[in-house]
Amino acid sequence: MATPTKPRGVFCAALTPVHDDLSPNHAAFTKHCQALLNDGLTGIALLGTTGEANSFSTAERQGLLEAALKAGIAPEKLLPGTGVTALTETVALTRHALSVGVTNVVMLPPFYYKNVTDEGLFASYAEVAERVGDSRLGIVLYHIPQFSTVPIPHDVIERLMTRYPGTFVGIKDSAGDIKNMLAMVERFPDFSVLAGADPLMLPLLQQGGAGAITATTNLVGADLAFVYKHFNDPSRKDQVEAAQARVVAGRNRASTYAQMASLKALVAERHGDQGWLNMRPPLVKLTEEERAALLAS
Amino acid sequence: MATPTKPRGVFCAALTPVHDDLSPNHAAFTKHCQALLNDGLTGIALLGTTGEANSFSTAERQGLLEAALKAGIAPEKLLPGTGVTALTETVALTRHALSVGVTNVVMLPPFYYKNVTDEGLFASYAEVAERVGDSRLGIVLYHIPQFSTVPIPHDVIERLMTRYPGTFVGIKDSAGDIKNMLAMVERFPDFSVLAGADPLMLPLLQQGGAGAITATTNLVGADLAFVYKHFNDPSRKDQVEAAQARVVAGRNRASTYAQMASLKALVAERHGDQGWLNMRPPLVKLTEEERAALLAS
Repeated sequence: MATPTKPRGVFCAALTPVHDDLSPNHAAFTKHCQALLNDGLTGIALLGTTGEANSFSTAERQGLLEAALKAGIAPEKLLPGTGVTALTETVALTRHALSVGVTNVVMLPPFYYKNVTDEGLFASYAEVAERVGDSRLGIVLYHIPQFSTVPIPHDVIERLMTRYPGTFVGIKDSAGDIKNMLAMVERFPDFSVLAGADPLMLPLLQQGGAGAITATTNLVGADLAFVYKHFNDPSRKDQVEAAQARVVAGRNRASTYAQMASLKALVAERHGDQGWLNMRPPLVKLTEEERAALLAS
Repeated sequence: MATPTKPRGVFCAALTPVHDDLSPNHAAFTKHCQALLNDGLTGIALLGTTGEANSFSTAERQGLLEAALKAGIAPEKLLPGTGVTALTETVALTRHALSVGVTNVVMLPPFYYKNVTDEGLFASYAEVAERVGDSRLGIVLYHIPQFSTVPIPHDVIERLMTRYPGTFVGIKDSAGDIKNMLAMVERFPDFSVLAGADPLMLPLLQQGGAGAITATTNLVGADLAFVYKHFNDPSRKDQVEAAQARVVAGRNRASTYAQMASLKALVAERHGDQGWLNMRPPLVKLTEEERAALLAS
């Protein structure tokens, strides 16, 4: 029986460029993905919060994943987001990923209803695991309560891991609290805990974490990849610290104004392509004043 | 040019029954819709929060709307929810409704991102109005920040009404604050303000509101329809008060335990069909103990 691999490393929560008509720009997207891999990143966590995934239809999401594969990116480098509010659409997106050879996915809990019970949250993920029913599937849970409004309690994780051994391979923890990450590292030895915030990857790695999935790596991937590769090498201590400092500075730079719009403005500079400024509502571009101040910073 | 009608009256935020495999039960749904119209309700606001709409795929939502029409329910009695997180899916659901003759829809704002700007919220609705581009379309905004996390400010409403005259016909205000409803009645004379909470319909009507879209009308529709019809008739004052008291009692009865599960348990009794107990995750049925206590109440 195939066993899913546990994701380890540094993954970019990739931005999604859109044309002026707001349709996904496949060419700009795959060019960006290739640049991210050239930065030394382990892989690409496409179609997450940073990627405006929930602003795209099921068909648009599938199209972006297929475009990345068609551009020659290996399926094992891709970690697409497949969790939406509708059980049947989460199943469809997950099955689609598997059908094109992508076996690890990042899965939001259904995020419309609030105060969801542990039972309801367990049932949501369990139904997906049952319905997809593919031993290759590796699910990375997505803990980002500031957007999803549905935190993922450790008891639910334990229940899922016990009921579906091997399927729940890790978690992206974007809540920003390292104590929560470390508690999971301790409680679940065979589980990849990935930091959702760049500065927290280093302390997490030092205590047994698996890496990170972050937005700032759209810009500073080479630095975070360096930290990942050498964090444990005393002879590189200074270089690691310098790289970590650049990561933190990059993150801070992108946090003065709206984060996703700022990242897009900076990636537009990176690729020399102003089309990158476009965003799908409800997110909006930076104003010209904000963008000028950001680029000058 | 066709002009959308402004919805006025009492609409039921209809529950959606599902089979044991959690697929939509069209037969039970249309039977329930017909019972609601027989209760004297103006129409059915299907596929809203109470209807677990966001737990269903685009195709499942379209199938439920088509089933209601196929069962003989007039399109002008139907107010489907069509607002989801993805711009292109909101457009697709809205176009589909129009394609089957249903011209008024209830539209959530995109609800994944938080702290959305007025500009981003305006753009979300404006893009839908532009892309659908059908003069028959009437959009009822859906203000339910406790679920959507995206409140709809009055300035955004004014901007939408000014930019797209006739298209934004009203709002379902489910936040439970009558002051907000009355402020809209005053500021927007040609706009249907519909209470999302049963007890607030009567005071809202008395000050110029248009009616209600509520969940408790799955059970007490005849009473709320009576209040709507006779609230202004001094000779029926006692009967109106008695009906209103039954509405409030019904609402309280369904609020002891999880509301949607409680309503389904009570509607299961109404129709003598225990299949109504099923819920799609992340929502879960009442426990047997809760259900017994609810039915005994």
